[in-house]
Amino acid sequence: MPFSFVTDSVETRSQARAGRIATAHGEVLTPAFMPVGTAGSVKSLTPDELREAGADILLANTYHLWLRPGSETVRGLDGLHRFMGWSGAILTDSGGFQIMSLAPLCKVRDEGVEFRSHLDGSALKLTPEKAIRIQDDLGTDIAMSLDQLIDMPAPPARVREAVDRTVAWAARGLEERDRLRAEGRGTMALFGINQGGTVAEERRRCFEMLGAMPFDGFALGGLWVGEDRSVGLERVEEDCARFPADKPRYLMGVGHPVDVIEAVARGVDMMDCVLPTRNARRGTVFVSSGRLVVKNAAYANDPRPLDPDCDCYTCRKFSRAYLRHLFAAGELLGMRLASIHAVHHMITLTRRARAAIIERRFAEFRAAFLERFASGETLAPPAPAAG
Amino acid sequence: MPFSFVTDSVETRSQARAGRIATAHGEVLTPAFMPVGTAGSVKSLTPDELREAGADILLANTYHLWLRPGSETVRGLDGLHRFMGWSGAILTDSGGFQIMSLAPLCKVRDEGVEFRSHLDGSALKLTPEKAIRIQDDLGTDIAMSLDQLIDMPAPPARVREAVDRTVAWAARGLEERDRLRAEGRGTMALFGINQGGTVAEERRRCFEMLGAMPFDGFALGGLWVGEDRSVGLERVEEDCARFPADKPRYLMGVGHPVDVIEAVARGVDMMDCVLPTRNARRGTVFVSSGRLVVKNAAYANDPRPLDPDCDCYTCRKFSRAYLRHLFAAGELLGMRLASIHAVHHMITLTRRARAAIIERRFAEFRAAFLERFASGETLAPPAPAAG
Repeated sequence: MPFSFVTDSVETRSQARAGRIATAHGEVLTPAFMPVGTAGSVKSLTPDELREAGADILLANTYHLWLRPGSETVRGLDGLHRFMGWSGAILTDSGGFQIMSLAPLCKVRDEGVEFRSHLDGSALKLTPEKAIRIQDDLGTDIAMSLDQLIDMPAPPARVREAVDRTVAWAARGLEERDRLRAEGRGTMALFGINQGGTVAEERRRCFEMLGAMPFDGFALGGLWVGEDRSVGLERVEEDCARFPADKPRYLMGVGHPVDVIEAVARGVDMMDCVLPTRNARRGTVFVSSGRLVVKNAAYANDPRPLDPDCDCYTCRKFSRAYLRHLFAAGELLGMRLASIHAVHHMITLTRRARAAIIERRFAEFRAAFLERFASGETLAPPAPAAG
Repeated sequence: MPFSFVTDSVETRSQARAGRIATAHGEVLTPAFMPVGTAGSVKSLTPDELREAGADILLANTYHLWLRPGSETVRGLDGLHRFMGWSGAILTDSGGFQIMSLAPLCKVRDEGVEFRSHLDGSALKLTPEKAIRIQDDLGTDIAMSLDQLIDMPAPPARVREAVDRTVAWAARGLEERDRLRAEGRGTMALFGINQGGTVAEERRRCFEMLGAMPFDGFALGGLWVGEDRSVGLERVEEDCARFPADKPRYLMGVGHPVDVIEAVARGVDMMDCVLPTRNARRGTVFVSSGRLVVKNAAYANDPRPLDPDCDCYTCRKFSRAYLRHLFAAGELLGMRLASIHAVHHMITLTRRARAAIIERRFAEFRAAFLERFASGETLAPPAPAAG
């Protein structure tokens, strides 16, 4: 099995750590931000652009690819890497999150999740075993266990039930991978997902069981779903303190630059989020000094790049004035150029954090980053509130 | 003035010719297909992708850029080349075609065209002088005279009036460029547009007047607006026979591969059309063997590139199955990859025609191209007609 994880350096004044994950599709440097390629493409971008932006790993959504074009179709075309032309590593989610948030008429039972396709209404069922088979069909490097998500806040009994089911499903997923391996397949790594939502005691209880299972890494699920940032970060700190030091830790669904740095400070190695690229397609990008709304009229004649501190393709070649024009005119190129910056910005942020950890100056890096991000320097003043 | 045109080779068995246009932004090889960057971007593509596809000249629409972001804004940002990051040559149209086809309440008078902006309804007027000034603000390499278009068929008196007005406007445009040059501006080349629609006698009469004016090149206007291909090609043949041999000839709005090769055979040097890229964004591309409808279910598992004979980025890297999936899923990357192929395909077609002309084998090239284009080889069979 080609999967391994080593930590190069751990901060002494925080839990931040720098590491490397080896996969059959190259090395992944951590902390890592994973751009999201929902349906087999990171929206509007080519694999080469992702490489140029520094990406060494992408996340793809099992639910979307299972429904369309179908995991067996992808397998027949030699797997997702070949299908989408991406030679780096791929992590797939289990499909559970999308089913529980997108699919209508979703019913969760011990056996699995019954739901209807959001595309054609057909009745489908995802079990923990099926989730593993589909991810193997896709040819992923890192698969995720099926877990049960619940909306928070929720009654204690409901949280408890979801934790127990998540643990049972985790064990069944591992067994299914064993069966696949007996068939000469299932080479992918498999991560377990810790649940319990924002309830500290349930997360502790969940990991008492999950942590005993032979997963290749552990994820933090059920966070960043509406709770205060401080609550989420407390749960991250507690989970990371319990997770084993020799396995990667993946915080699911986190992508705001401030959250990323704060999570890294608490010991998280991997993150993913559609936020930076979704915002970018709508004309808002993160830059060193905060959040820039590209369409703002103040940029109509601004010859500066989106972020004067950035060396991405977009910032090397194009002005705010041009980007603003593209968004005003509804030109697709605007979404692309903003997306290129967005991916590059997030990956550069984690790379800089990594360098700071290795050079024992992460605390200074974190303080400087937060100060600059809050500065608003080089941004247009916020538009006056509508009267 | 940096503009010049030389012919390298003229076919003996047809009127096809190979040439080179020198501009302040590099050399343009002819026959040339010009991708259309309506609002300052060839939809979904970067300047680097256009270069990689072989483009050395783009067309931009004066009407769109004048209205948004404004020609003075573009001038203030050092011109269109800098604004859009394109270092090659740019040809701008006069704005007349867009006004007469897009703008509501358009009134054509001797003085100019009065209309309302399709963006905000504001009342505007474009005169032949203003058309030249705007194109100079944009910093174009090749500007076009304002001409009057009419819907065909039209009463003889109306065609005659449009021809007379076009000729009067052509003279006023040249005078305006002289005034600009006296101010140290107006370095761009200026082409006159021959009119008369599909009426052979009026086109002859138009060029008797227009051909005496000191234009740097001549365009064929008012064709490919609904008439039969054979009628259009007859007018092209007649116009080209009258146009001077030492100036470039530009057939406006032509972009179907068969039309391009047939126009080249009659002596046309330059063409532009949104057809290949607009079709591509909608999921249909021209390939060597005809017209490929990417979304066709027959391609769902097809590992071949769009065009096995093509070496564009898309065809080197991605399968029909992946492209079909992207279109089915509504992914922006599908539009991009299809557009890259579309531009590369048209430019490669004109480059191959050029090589054939120089090597004295254009007749064979033309016959082989037409036969293969009609073959449908490698394409999916057409879908059965709806019952």
